[in-house]
Amino acid sequence: MGAQSQQPCLGVIACGGAMPITVCEAAAAQGRRVHVVGFSGLADPRIEAFSHDWVRIGQLGGLLAALKNAGCVDLVIIGTMRRPNIWKSGLDLGFFRHLPTIISMTRTGGDDSLLSRIVRFFEGQGFHVRGAHEIAPSLVAPSGPLGGVSPEEGAREDTARGLELLAALAPFDVGQSAVVARGHVLAVEAAEGTDAMLRRCAELRQWGGRKRGGVLVKAPKLGQEMRVDMPVIGPRTVELAAAAGLAGIAVASGKVMIVEQAEMIALADRHGLFVIGADAAADL
Amino acid sequence: MGAQSQQPCLGVIACGGAMPITVCEAAAAQGRRVHVVGFSGLADPRIEAFSHDWVRIGQLGGLLAALKNAGCVDLVIIGTMRRPNIWKSGLDLGFFRHLPTIISMTRTGGDDSLLSRIVRFFEGQGFHVRGAHEIAPSLVAPSGPLGGVSPEEGAREDTARGLELLAALAPFDVGQSAVVARGHVLAVEAAEGTDAMLRRCAELRQWGGRKRGGVLVKAPKLGQEMRVDMPVIGPRTVELAAAAGLAGIAVASGKVMIVEQAEMIALADRHGLFVIGADAAADL
Repeated sequence: MGAQSQQPCLGVIACGGAMPITVCEAAAAQGRRVHVVGFSGLADPRIEAFSHDWVRIGQLGGLLAALKNAGCVDLVIIGTMRRPNIWKSGLDLGFFRHLPTIISMTRTGGDDSLLSRIVRFFEGQGFHVRGAHEIAPSLVAPSGPLGGVSPEEGAREDTARGLELLAALAPFDVGQSAVVARGHVLAVEAAEGTDAMLRRCAELRQWGGRKRGGVLVKAPKLGQEMRVDMPVIGPRTVELAAAAGLAGIAVASGKVMIVEQAEMIALADRHGLFVIGADAAADL
Repeated sequence: MGAQSQQPCLGVIACGGAMPITVCEAAAAQGRRVHVVGFSGLADPRIEAFSHDWVRIGQLGGLLAALKNAGCVDLVIIGTMRRPNIWKSGLDLGFFRHLPTIISMTRTGGDDSLLSRIVRFFEGQGFHVRGAHEIAPSLVAPSGPLGGVSPEEGAREDTARGLELLAALAPFDVGQSAVVARGHVLAVEAAEGTDAMLRRCAELRQWGGRKRGGVLVKAPKLGQEMRVDMPVIGPRTVELAAAAGLAGIAVASGKVMIVEQAEMIALADRHGLFVIGADAAADL
């Protein structure tokens, strides 16, 4: 066995967006061998700068073979996903071989448990699933303010209240985010997602006629599968928060991913919104 | 002083809908003297079956005088309210005399504290504000099922989970209701109100394609001013719950008001929805 094959190879399953590229670049910068398997029609063509294969979403057999042929052990699954049209996804024999497992994975439970089962599936195939942030820590929010706007006193109190609320909701597998304005909880996210919650706040503001204020607070749920399902904010979050008349966004530092970070910060500065990585309610 | 004037007179400030009539009828059935002051354009004309006065919403002086002239001490404020157009509401001298108090009442705080201040205002004028349900207990949900549909086993678990969730949210002055389906919290109500939350669940169902199931759970918030701001369900709640594909509605018994109860129960039976007054999570 040569030195090359003994070097642990990082497998990256690349879904959409720029985050898979960031992970590959971070791994390469650390001197790690990396092999990307991109979903065709979804992954950024820039993965071709690295050792790579393309598969269709239904080619589970091809995906596993590509990762094993490259000698991958550690595995990162990263990027944006959309619900695939299963009949147009290029199902291969490997898919049908794992079909019983896939069916038992999708039949019961909410999103969390489905994603946990995806992790367990790949671990069962001999891979060690890692969080993208373990390879590329720059993907997650640091502690402290991002961008040029600092939260005012009331915003810090709203953030603390929001974090306390999310902690109280933790046992119920709900509440990845909430909006708090001047001590009042305006909205709590459940199955509708953060974007829909922010749109609702924009409507509330329209009817209430209140002036700008309030904080979007976002943190992972208790037991959330952080390796494949970390909470995410990005430019669209800032746009929606601005439209809702909020003063800023506070996320749990180290536990929330930021997509298109530079663009998001520029947008927040332009809107006069603060974005802050909060360590815990007590640290604000 | 004659016997008539010694009998304690119940004052009823009648806003919209049938509930003020129910309160007057219950008081009369108990042999109590009752005097209704109805807001013109808002209160049901059937209040004229009782000793009554009509005032416009801005005639605060006239309202107080009418109640005092009738010798009212106990006071019930009941019925549906809409945001008045203050300039078309017939403001009288009494309104302007109390304007400093009114301004201090409306300038700060959320809905709860505004309604608490309305209670304090009338108490400051020498009245004892009572809950409508103290006079007419039939207005609130009893314990056990209303109508012909009984909750299935899963629905009882969802109800218990919903009640636990609302209890956990209590310290945050939020969460008068939530929707739980098969153990998953689909929606949590904050400032948008129960109706908007149910409409959101209908949309979620549309996209998720799930079959009928889930429970709307509703209970008062901690410290909610139960004399003037009890949670309410009615026929529209049943219509929206049915449109959201829910299996039923569970409310905290004795703590949630039902408007148009007969109509609501008939509607629930027609849709196959259960409606239950739940005593506590442990009792289900």
